[in-house]
Amino acid sequence: MIDLRSDTITRPSPDMLEAMMKAEVGDDVFGEDETVNAFQQKVAKMFGMEAGLYVPSGTMSNQLGVKVLTEPGDEILIDEKGHIFNYETGAASALSGVQVRTLPGKHGKLNTSLLDHTKRGHYDWEPRTRVICLENSTNKGGGVCYSKQELSEIKSFADEENLFVHLDGARIWNAITATDVEPGFFGEISDTISVCFSKGLGAPVGSMLLSSKEHITKARRYRKMWGGGMRQVGLLAAAADYALENNWDKLKDDHRRAKEVAKVIFDSKFLAVDMNSLQTNILLFDTVKEPAEKVIKKLKKKGIQMIPFGPQIIRATFHFQITDEDVEVVKQVLADIGE
Amino acid sequence: MIDLRSDTITRPSPDMLEAMMKAEVGDDVFGEDETVNAFQQKVAKMFGMEAGLYVPSGTMSNQLGVKVLTEPGDEILIDEKGHIFNYETGAASALSGVQVRTLPGKHGKLNTSLLDHTKRGHYDWEPRTRVICLENSTNKGGGVCYSKQELSEIKSFADEENLFVHLDGARIWNAITATDVEPGFFGEISDTISVCFSKGLGAPVGSMLLSSKEHITKARRYRKMWGGGMRQVGLLAAAADYALENNWDKLKDDHRRAKEVAKVIFDSKFLAVDMNSLQTNILLFDTVKEPAEKVIKKLKKKGIQMIPFGPQIIRATFHFQITDEDVEVVKQVLADIGE
Amino acid sequence: MIDLRSDTITRPSPDMLEAMMKAEVGDDVFGEDETVNAFQQKVAKMFGMEAGLYVPSGTMSNQLGVKVLTEPGDEILIDEKGHIFNYETGAASALSGVQVRTLPGKHGKLNTSLLDHTKRGHYDWEPRTRVICLENSTNKGGGVCYSKQELSEIKSFADEENLFVHLDGARIWNAITATDVEPGFFGEISDTISVCFSKGLGAPVGSMLLSSKEHITKARRYRKMWGGGMRQVGLLAAAADYALENNWDKLKDDHRRAKEVAKVIFDSKFLAVDMNSLQTNILLFDTVKEPAEKVIKKLKKKGIQMIPFGPQIIRATFHFQITDEDVEVVKQVLADIGE
Amino acid sequence: MIDLRSDTITRPSPDMLEAMMKAEVGDDVFGEDETVNAFQQKVAKMFGMEAGLYVPSGTMSNQLGVKVLTEPGDEILIDEKGHIFNYETGAASALSGVQVRTLPGKHGKLNTSLLDHTKRGHYDWEPRTRVICLENSTNKGGGVCYSKQELSEIKSFADEENLFVHLDGARIWNAITATDVEPGFFGEISDTISVCFSKGLGAPVGSMLLSSKEHITKARRYRKMWGGGMRQVGLLAAAADYALENNWDKLKDDHRRAKEVAKVIFDSKFLAVDMNSLQTNILLFDTVKEPAEKVIKKLKKKGIQMIPFGPQIIRATFHFQITDEDVEVVKQVLADIGE
Repeated sequence: MIDLRSDTITRPSPDMLEAMMKAEVGDDVFGEDETVNAFQQKVAKMFGMEAGLYVPSGTMSNQLGVKVLTEPGDEILIDEKGHIFNYETGAASALSGVQVRTLPGKHGKLNTSLLDHTKRGHYDWEPRTRVICLENSTNKGGGVCYSKQELSEIKSFADEENLFVHLDGARIWNAITATDVEPGFFGEISDTISVCFSKGLGAPVGSMLLSSKEHITKARRYRKMWGGGMRQVGLLAAAADYALENNWDKLKDDHRRAKEVAKVIFDSKFLAVDMNSLQTNILLFDTVKEPAEKVIKKLKKKGIQMIPFGPQIIRATFHFQITDEDVEVVKQVLADIGE
Repeated sequence: MIDLRSDTITRPSPDMLEAMMKAEVGDDVFGEDETVNAFQQKVAKMFGMEAGLYVPSGTMSNQLGVKVLTEPGDEILIDEKGHIFNYETGAASALSGVQVRTLPGKHGKLNTSLLDHTKRGHYDWEPRTRVICLENSTNKGGGVCYSKQELSEIKSFADEENLFVHLDGARIWNAITATDVEPGFFGEISDTISVCFSKGLGAPVGSMLLSSKEHITKARRYRKMWGGGMRQVGLLAAAADYALENNWDKLKDDHRRAKEVAKVIFDSKFLAVDMNSLQTNILLFDTVKEPAEKVIKKLKKKGIQMIPFGPQIIRATFHFQITDEDVEVVKQVLADIGE
Repeated sequence: MIDLRSDTITRPSPDMLEAMMKAEVGDDVFGEDETVNAFQQKVAKMFGMEAGLYVPSGTMSNQLGVKVLTEPGDEILIDEKGHIFNYETGAASALSGVQVRTLPGKHGKLNTSLLDHTKRGHYDWEPRTRVICLENSTNKGGGVCYSKQELSEIKSFADEENLFVHLDGARIWNAITATDVEPGFFGEISDTISVCFSKGLGAPVGSMLLSSKEHITKARRYRKMWGGGMRQVGLLAAAADYALENNWDKLKDDHRRAKEVAKVIFDSKFLAVDMNSLQTNILLFDTVKEPAEKVIKKLKKKGIQMIPFGPQIIRATFHFQITDEDVEVVKQVLADIGE
Repeated sequence: MIDLRSDTITRPSPDMLEAMMKAEVGDDVFGEDETVNAFQQKVAKMFGMEAGLYVPSGTMSNQLGVKVLTEPGDEILIDEKGHIFNYETGAASALSGVQVRTLPGKHGKLNTSLLDHTKRGHYDWEPRTRVICLENSTNKGGGVCYSKQELSEIKSFADEENLFVHLDGARIWNAITATDVEPGFFGEISDTISVCFSKGLGAPVGSMLLSSKEHITKARRYRKMWGGGMRQVGLLAAAADYALENNWDKLKDDHRRAKEVAKVIFDSKFLAVDMNSLQTNILLFDTVKEPAEKVIKKLKKKGIQMIPFGPQIIRATFHFQITDEDVEVVKQVLADIGE
């Protein structure tokens, strides 16, 4: 099977496992796992943030970001395609008591004209707007990235309106690869950043929240409360560190492969794709005349797995365990189906 | 001052106060206030519901409805203009831990094509859709009402998709007056209904949640928990009962007056109004060339109070303490401003 | 029936109703009810606090106090007999997400030796202690009052340990009557105070939270969120004001009557009472040989209502609608039963 | 350093790491990690439960147990030494909105006479009692275990009163070793069980919730919501499985070593220990004349780490990475200190 359902499914390579075996570990609940401590500092520094907190999932780092920036009764703004709104079991409302207000952005991205006039909270009966949540690259938006200019504008808006910015950087590595925005810039425009090591980078488990020391201290308490305090977690951090050092470079190949496959779709008769919005490793395409589910079944028969992203939309996600040979197969099968 | 800011501002009349003075009261926390008990049964019966619960505000009855129908992590669907989303301090998320998902309806009303494909919750990472929240008449939507047909369609959809319906009937009295849908029909298409006595009906305080006995029993506990258990509340229930018996009839005059004023706006040069969407006592109009705030200031100088409902939208709300004489004044002033 | 179940059951007198009828009212959600505004200032000033907030119940004012002083994951300290722990439907945990830690005080009162070594929160895994909750007079503790000395000691402890003090003054009027501690002293030793007008004072509905302007501003938002924002609530505030002006003086008679009845119990053969702990209007006595429920049934047959407070404990509560004639009847019946 | 602070600090052995490297893994969020799936079934079966759910920490499995058994406003009963009350950052109140009611048991154990008359919830103003939380062996209680008889009595009580039982089995492996109660018996008397692999068993990370299929399905959603859904988690499950197969047997040696050290304390002049309450790997002893902190400093100078458990109580915890040679050192140092 060529599994393009998600970049979360990669399995640890022998080299990565060896890195894990060599890791010095300690009890991280006591703050004594030096592998974790060093890795937290390293990633925080990379993004120009004061501190980092290693957690078991991207959902936890996103939700800790929301938690430390809000109080119950607050409102957060997010594109209607945002991961926090769609794929985190309603956690922002359940764990932080905040109302999630969606805005109809483009490809999962917000912009200042959408944000204009959204701030509220002057009256007792209004929820109080507190946080703008961005996702970069976007997942449901098809892997699209913010430009530096777009981010600067949103940051200026947030400053004027006295709002926080949380950045869901589950695939920030892809965004950096695709846009050449340096990591430190994300630290400048965000109050909290969530980054993930278990997607394209290929670590088995783990994400990190980056922020000020004060927010991270608070987040540590909530991590413990929510059950995310783990013991000899240096094992996992070692894998994440290995992934960062060795697999980040490979993302550009994922992007190239996504484009190659997209081109076949673009040229096909019965499938459609917007080449301009294909920027990273996530390829969304339109099944035009047929229901997505039907095309997915056809693909599966040919040994290829993708997932539906709407009644007529399919998502294919590329990662380093998809080879060039796999891509050739996918191209051929899609060409046949699209005929 | 002619105060058209809201129909919540009416003051109790001498007759209403006399009704309050005559009321038999008891300790309602012990369930011993017979005036409340009888009034709860009366209103429940009117809507074909098993039981009612008198509460201090429409926010409480709406939120109790959401609470008894959901669990944390659930999602409720509501028009983006809905009261629960806009004017209840984010309570649905803070008190029930549910995510509020807005849909872009028309004049604050939902419909089945909007609702289509919104249900989710099959996967662990999705919030679980549970309740469709309707508002009738709509507040932010400009007092527009659902037709029987529209409600039937939504109810059928809800049944097919196994979703609950909560009806925010803050101004259900206006809707019944305007559309001749009988109260019992609302009971048929809803799992919980919130009705309010302190808007057009003119009672000083109080709303009621209507539902099954089971839901009301549960809601009683939450009412106590949230601080809504009051003692000799028969005093207030007597006022509400008086309002229902004596003031409901007057709503048709409010509707007529709203139309009369709207006509002047329609005929004016610099103000605009959609006559088709003016159905009850809430009149929304467009200030076209000027900011709403500026027009509101002009009105205030002439002794008329209205409130802004958008950068260029003003709301005027009619109630029984606005007389025909007041209306003549308002018409004249608007005619001058709209010139 | 002579109803000694609670002092919450008093019904408004004609004079009080007349005061209500004369009240100037407005829409308090807009902050425009001048009767409420003046009353809030008056009571706040009496206790040396900056601001007050009128709410529908003592549960709401207690819970708003807890809410503004805590964050989720905090811990509050309270005597195991405290009202917040026993009679508020678990609201502190449900609405504020705080853990309620009980201490085994005497007659419902805490003291510094009990409080010693209770503060925690240094480690991520510990709840963080934030508030000491006092009740004065105590309800489940039998109407016992704190001395000025006891309160000063607790306040010093709280300051040293950097903890807040919330005072549940549901029956603060009784405490002031019984101990001659002036109201302003309670303001000095507390961060938030809840006072109630619908117990011994005899108003039909209403309590008030007293605190700093900042806390009250925050509490207003939560009052709205929890459904406690009411409209022409000056009606109720006028009754509460009347109660304060006219009924406070009568509490000393309630205390005298409680003592008279207690003496009969003390002298009886089969009932027991601790005369030293009888300080206000709440009389707890022991049924010694018989279950409380059985004695309550006997009393009911003779036209007297009391409530069980433990397997062998009965509570009788005195209020101004219990006359001296009633007291004579109660004494006679208890003398017979205790024989 | 001989580190007796906790049995959570053990580090993975080379054999365990090898087992991890060999594990077949998949994406557990999609339910596709066969190593996890098999391990969940294996442990569930061992305890006679229908299903299991692997989670990152014992706090998460405990809190998921509380979550699936309660609603906000409920109350759970627990010994005042219980882990859920003391070491989980107030999570039961913050995540489930439940009130934690402590009872003063013995060595951290509840019994039916303590539980008697604790159930409440009949009235709207009472929290509703729902769950009895047990811990076996007890942590803060000094490693003491329940007998089969004690557990049966509590289960009968729970059934009569219609209450659930949650068992915190963080050290259930020690309890089984010490008491010969078979695992299946715990499944009989519990609705939910939390077991932990990262304490005495020595796995680096991980706990498991055991319960009915229905509860586990619900718990899976909450695990995702709280951020506990991990990807290729079979890596960790393989380590836990290795621990269960290879390290369980070693616990009896930990117990023996704890007893040997205790004997030295018992015989010493200035330290005290209750030999009867020493049943497993946790040794609590009394510093009698000196503050615990001072004795801990002395120990540290001699290369031994323990932690304070009260002003004059010290906890030493034994695990398989403490050797017989270490024990000899500890005995000698304690003999010197206790002189």
